Amino acid sequence: MTSADERATLVSVARAAGVSRQTVSNALHAPAKVAPETLERVLAAVEELGYRPSLAARQLRTNRSRTLGLRLEHWGGGISGSVLDRFLHALVDEAQGRGYRVVLFTADDDAGEVARYDELLSTGQIDGFVLTSTHHGDQRTAWLLERGVPFATFGRPWPTPGSGEPVRTDHCWVDVDGAAGTRAATEHLLAAGHAVPAYLGWPDGSGTGEDRRRGWAQGLTDAGVDPAGAVELQVPDSTAAAFEAVASALTDGGGAAPTALVCASDSLALGARGAAARLGRPLEVVGFDDTPVAHAIGVSSVAQPLAEAATLAVDLLLAQVEAGPGGPPPARQHLLAPRLVLRTSP
Amino acid sequence: MTSADERATLVSVARAAGVSRQTVSNALHAPAKVAPETLERVLAAVEELGYRPSLAARQLRTNRSRTLGLRLEHWGGGISGSVLDRFLHALVDEAQGRGYRVVLFTADDDAGEVARYDELLSTGQIDGFVLTSTHHGDQRTAWLLERGVPFATFGRPWPTPGSGEPVRTDHCWVDVDGAAGTRAATEHLLAAGHAVPAYLGWPDGSGTGEDRRRGWAQGLTDAGVDPAGAVELQVPDSTAAAFEAVASALTDGGGAAPTALVCASDSLALGARGAAARLGRPLEVVGFDDTPVAHAIGVSSVAQPLAEAATLAVDLLLAQVEAGPGGPPPARQHLLAPRLVLRTSP
Repeated sequence: MTSADERATLVSVARAAGVSRQTVSNALHAPAKVAPETLERVLAAVEELGYRPSLAARQLRTNRSRTLGLRLEHWGGGISGSVLDRFLHALVDEAQGRGYRVVLFTADDDAGEVARYDELLSTGQIDGFVLTSTHHGDQRTAWLLERGVPFATFGRPWPTPGSGEPVRTDHCWVDVDGAAGTRAATEHLLAAGHAVPAYLGWPDGSGTGEDRRRGWAQGLTDAGVDPAGAVELQVPDSTAAAFEAVASALTDGGGAAPTALVCASDSLALGARGAAARLGRPLEVVGFDDTPVAHAIGVSSVAQPLAEAATLAVDLLLAQVEAGPGGPPPARQHLLAPRLVLRTSP
Repeated sequence: MTSADERATLVSVARAAGVSRQTVSNALHAPAKVAPETLERVLAAVEELGYRPSLAARQLRTNRSRTLGLRLEHWGGGISGSVLDRFLHALVDEAQGRGYRVVLFTADDDAGEVARYDELLSTGQIDGFVLTSTHHGDQRTAWLLERGVPFATFGRPWPTPGSGEPVRTDHCWVDVDGAAGTRAATEHLLAAGHAVPAYLGWPDGSGTGEDRRRGWAQGLTDAGVDPAGAVELQVPDSTAAAFEAVASALTDGGGAAPTALVCASDSLALGARGAAARLGRPLEVVGFDDTPVAHAIGVSSVAQPLAEAATLAVDLLLAQVEAGPGGPPPARQHLLAPRLVLRTSP
C-alpha cells in the first residue's frame, strides 16, 4: 500500500528503470514497441514501486471515465423525498458493483441541468446520465438524444398530447406502473366494503399524478361505479393542505362523505388520516410510495420496487456506454409493477 | 454548443491548424515555445472548433481532480436516515458552488471504506473525503492522517477512554452539540411542570448516544434532580422497540410512570407517542433530528443545523485541498448548537 505522498508515477518508474517516460508508456500500452530486456526492466520497476496508471491517464486513452452523472434534486422537506433518496442508494450500489462511480450535481430546472450535462461532457468526465422526475415539457431528453449521449430515465416520457412539445419518447426508461398501484388500492377498498372510495390527488399538470388518478378511476369503472359520482379532491403535495381538504370533505359531505380514500402520496395520506382522527370519523386511507412515515405510523401504501428500478436503469445506461462498434442497442423500456402494502394503525 | 459526437479534440484542432498535437498543447500551456503566427493559427482553430481541454488532461497537469468523495451509508429503512440525506444535499450544493463534484461510493464497514479510499487515491481521481458517522474504534481517520490525505468528518472523534484504540482526534471535524439539544429538551419539560422527565435512548456503545444521554442527565442535575432516580430506558433505534418499552414503563410504573420523555431520536419518539396514545396516558415527548416525520405528525424535536455543518465540512476540507506550498493549515473543529423545535400534536 503506497502512501499518497509517495505515490508512484510514470516519472518515478521511468527514473527507476532508467528509461524515458515514453518507454514506460509503451511498455504498458504498446509492449511490442519495446525491446524485451527493456520491457522486463520497466515492468520490474512498475511492480516494485506499485505503480498504477492513473484513471485520468487511462481516460485519455479510452475516452471512458467510468462515471455516471445524476442530478440530486432539491430537498423539499416533505416525506416523499425519501423515494428518490432510496433510488439513489440502490443506484450507487448497482453502479459500483459494475465498476462505475456516481457523481452528483444540482440544478434549478431543466435548462440548468442541461448546462451541467454540457459542462461535464465537454470536459470528458462522464459516460452517461440517469435522469429522474420526467415531466410534461421535459427538455432534457431531446438534448441528450440529439447529441447521442447515453442516458436512461427513471420515469417514462410524458408528452402532452397535441401540444407539439418537444418531449421525446424514443429513449431508454424504467418506470413504475402507478395506475396499477392506485387501481389495486381501489380494488382493496371496494372489497373491504366501501361503496365509493374517494381520491385525493395533485393539481393537473403532473404526468405521474394523472397516471395515479387514472388507476383509481379505472378501478371504480371496472367495479361498475362511475368515477364522476365519486368525491375527488386536488391539493398540492402537503400534509397540511390534505388535512384541510379532507376535513372539509368529511364535514360538508353529509351522507355522501367518503369512508375510504386513495391518495397520490403518503404526505396526502398522512394529512387525510389526521383530519379523520381529529373529527372522529372513520376513514380508511391508502397512500403511495411506502415511505418510512407510512411504515412507522401504520398507513397502507403502494410500494415502488426502487432497487429493481435502479438496477434496470444502470443496465439500460451501461448497454449504451459499453456498446461496441455496432453502436448502441435499440432503446428499451421497463414498466414495473408496484406492490400494495396493507397495514392497520397501531 | 458542440455535440458529443463532434466534440473538438486536440487531434481535430491540430488537423485544422496543420500542426502537431504537441504544438497545440504548447500553444495552450507554453505559448512562449510557439512561433507567433503558428500560435495565432492554433488559437483560431481552438476558438472555431470550440475546443476545451478535457478535465482529464488538465488533471494530469495539475494533479487535482476537483472531486470530493463521500460514502453513502446503507439505507436503513428508518426515519432517521433522512438526516444524512439532508446533509448530502447541502454538501453537494456547497461543493458545486465552489467548483467541486461529489462522488459517492458504498462500503460495508470501516475496512471496506478504507479500501475504497485507497482505490480512489491510487487512481488519482479524488482530492479528499468527507466522513460521516464517526464512532468508537473508528479506523478511518488514522489511515487518512498517516497518508496526509485531506479530509473532514461530520461527527467528532469518539475515542473510548483508556481503551488504547487507535482513534485519532487531531483532525478537522464539524459536529452538532447533541448534549446541548437534550439538555434544552429536558429544561423545556421541567419548565412545563414535569417533575422528572425520563430518557429513552440507545444501548451503550454509541458516542452520539452517550452524548445525548449526558445532556438529559445534566439538565436534571442542574435543576437539582438526581438522574439516578429517573426512569431511563434503552432500546435499539426502532419505533416498535420504543413502543414496547414505553408501554411497559407506563403500565408497570404505577405512580412513578413518567409524564415526559426525552428521546435520542425521532424513531424512538414516534414509538413512545404511539404507546402513550394506545394506553390513553399523557406523555409529552421530545425527539431528536427534526425529521420530516416529526414535522408531519407534530412531535417536538431537536433540529441539527445540517446546511451549516455541510458548508463548514466543505470549508475545512478545501482549506487542506487548496493549501499552498506552506502545507495545510492546522486542524480546526466546529461544534454547532442545535435548536429545539416545539410542536403540539394536530
